Amino acid sequence: MPPDAIPARGLAAFSPTAPLGRWDFARRPVGPRDVRVAIDYCGICHSDVHTVRGEWGPISYPLVPGHEIVGRVAEVGSAVSRWQVGDRVGVGCMVASCRQCGPCAQGLEQYCDAGFTDTYNGKDLVSGGVTQGGYSDTIVVDDHFVLRVPEGLDAAAAAPLLCAGITTWSPLTHWGTGPGKRVGVVGIGGLGHMAVKLASALGAEVVAITRSAAKAAEARRLGAHDAVVATETGALKPHRSSLDLIIDTVGTGHDLEPLVGLLRMHGTLCLVGGAPEPHSAVRAFSVIGKRRSIAGSLIGGIAETQAMLDFCGARGITSDVELIGVDGVNAAYERVVHADVRYRFVIDLATLDGGR
Amino acid sequence: MPPDAIPARGLAAFSPTAPLGRWDFARRPVGPRDVRVAIDYCGICHSDVHTVRGEWGPISYPLVPGHEIVGRVAEVGSAVSRWQVGDRVGVGCMVASCRQCGPCAQGLEQYCDAGFTDTYNGKDLVSGGVTQGGYSDTIVVDDHFVLRVPEGLDAAAAAPLLCAGITTWSPLTHWGTGPGKRVGVVGIGGLGHMAVKLASALGAEVVAITRSAAKAAEARRLGAHDAVVATETGALKPHRSSLDLIIDTVGTGHDLEPLVGLLRMHGTLCLVGGAPEPHSAVRAFSVIGKRRSIAGSLIGGIAETQAMLDFCGARGITSDVELIGVDGVNAAYERVVHADVRYRFVIDLATLDGGR
Repeated sequence: MPPDAIPARGLAAFSPTAPLGRWDFARRPVGPRDVRVAIDYCGICHSDVHTVRGEWGPISYPLVPGHEIVGRVAEVGSAVSRWQVGDRVGVGCMVASCRQCGPCAQGLEQYCDAGFTDTYNGKDLVSGGVTQGGYSDTIVVDDHFVLRVPEGLDAAAAAPLLCAGITTWSPLTHWGTGPGKRVGVVGIGGLGHMAVKLASALGAEVVAITRSAAKAAEARRLGAHDAVVATETGALKPHRSSLDLIIDTVGTGHDLEPLVGLLRMHGTLCLVGGAPEPHSAVRAFSVIGKRRSIAGSLIGGIAETQAMLDFCGARGITSDVELIGVDGVNAAYERVVHADVRYRFVIDLATLDGGR
Repeated sequence: MPPDAIPARGLAAFSPTAPLGRWDFARRPVGPRDVRVAIDYCGICHSDVHTVRGEWGPISYPLVPGHEIVGRVAEVGSAVSRWQVGDRVGVGCMVASCRQCGPCAQGLEQYCDAGFTDTYNGKDLVSGGVTQGGYSDTIVVDDHFVLRVPEGLDAAAAAPLLCAGITTWSPLTHWGTGPGKRVGVVGIGGLGHMAVKLASALGAEVVAITRSAAKAAEARRLGAHDAVVATETGALKPHRSSLDLIIDTVGTGHDLEPLVGLLRMHGTLCLVGGAPEPHSAVRAFSVIGKRRSIAGSLIGGIAETQAMLDFCGARGITSDVELIGVDGVNAAYERVVHADVRYRFVIDLATLDGGR
């Protein structure tokens, strides 16, 4: 460890199958363009589970997951002027990108031609080591990737905005969600419940599509104008050829045909769930007949993430969360796998022994 | 037959399996808003074969196929003012639509909410009978669906513009093909060879993708800047993440993954081939990573068809055709099925016994 490295404490995965456990490690020293954030809360994303269990490919252990990070600025590099120690900030799924390619120049760092650096399990461009995420007491991040979190928002409930929020906000706004538009949301989980809240706040008419009658009722409470239980015969029929956009948050392979059939002319079915297995086959006639599209969207750029946070700050929008301590993370993982959470677990990092 | 019905002669399918044969039938009388066209040429589209053989669903026989029609105005209804007898005109895939829905109001009659009327095998909104297509000496069509074919173009070679031309033109222009854009064309057949010509004339850099070395060479002659033989190992690699749009004309189910991988950020793979069987499964990560889309597009609206014909007239663009007589149609069908045509058969209707 370099003499100026930052000692950090966290919760790490040590193998694809073992429970997560405490781990002491080092963050890189705070460079001129870096910000050190003292982490208060970190959300648990289904991606965390997929990654640490090796379901998205082999990884190196130990690994500290977590990319829905909210904390306060603890230290700023010499070249950083926009933050004060104590500012409420967030870090999402990215901590670096090339900053020079076409996508980066457009503020779409998530599509960086060189590949952005994941907040965890990425290659740290400065230290050369593996990036470690937010199930930790502190993190050192390039200033460009630090977001302002409105003080008016509950900090724990704002944490999921950094992934679940922006992952749905980006396609919603890219495809022009607003008054007069009809938006479907498939899967009412971490991402889906945010999609319902955001699409509704943007002025669209929202149709929630779920396999659970209980979640259909909850989706209405969250702001959906209609909610259908997709497994009920004929449930989708009233919405055929009526939606401009569908945000499909389901994280496992499924049949896209019934969803494509809900799109009106020029409508888009946008996949945001990282299903490891392929979705069912595509019938050419399903997309040809109304110039429909099946697309995908990945998190969101830094500028649009800030815009989303500001929008949420102005409207008082946060995630519905279950706050847990670090000792509850392994049990929470099992519940995430079984979609048994309303709607996001958030870890209170103050529960790490000894504090920071 | 009503006393003022128009006697017509044509070539019809009488069953899914029997060869096409001569058939005398009646066209509806020329109404106030109708135009009667004396047909000179009609292209053979793969759709004709799929339809008459019942591959796209059961149909009623006898059926006269053909929707790439070029002829001259022979008679105009009392309320029609824009045509003179003798004008060079064309009729494509549509002969009616509701003219009132949102898509129709936008000039996108092909996506009519009520469904447009196919030039053949449709329900004639006036007579109530089945529409009959262009393998015939004459046709009666609502004025709105009659296109002006530039006199400077070879009439036989212009016929395929009415389907193969507009089917590729519509997605090319919808997705902004022009200078600075890179367009892939998959399948160098009737549609594909038009896509290469049109994309190139629109100023894009064109990459042809085929399974045949001979067609790769021909694609370059047609205007492609590069042409790759997709079955050769590594052939696609230099074009990974580089195309803005791919026009996929292949009419049978195939693997879309290697094609999706050729798209850059925001790129679209557009299916225009009517494969009866589904394409391979879609992997979410393939579209998520660069906000790519898999879309479809259906022929084109009347206004854009006229724009395409005018563009082709100004540039001298037509299809590469093999002109045949009516007695050659059954043999031509076999060659269409085996993709053995450079690049479109066109029937010379003057070869119908007894003329018109």
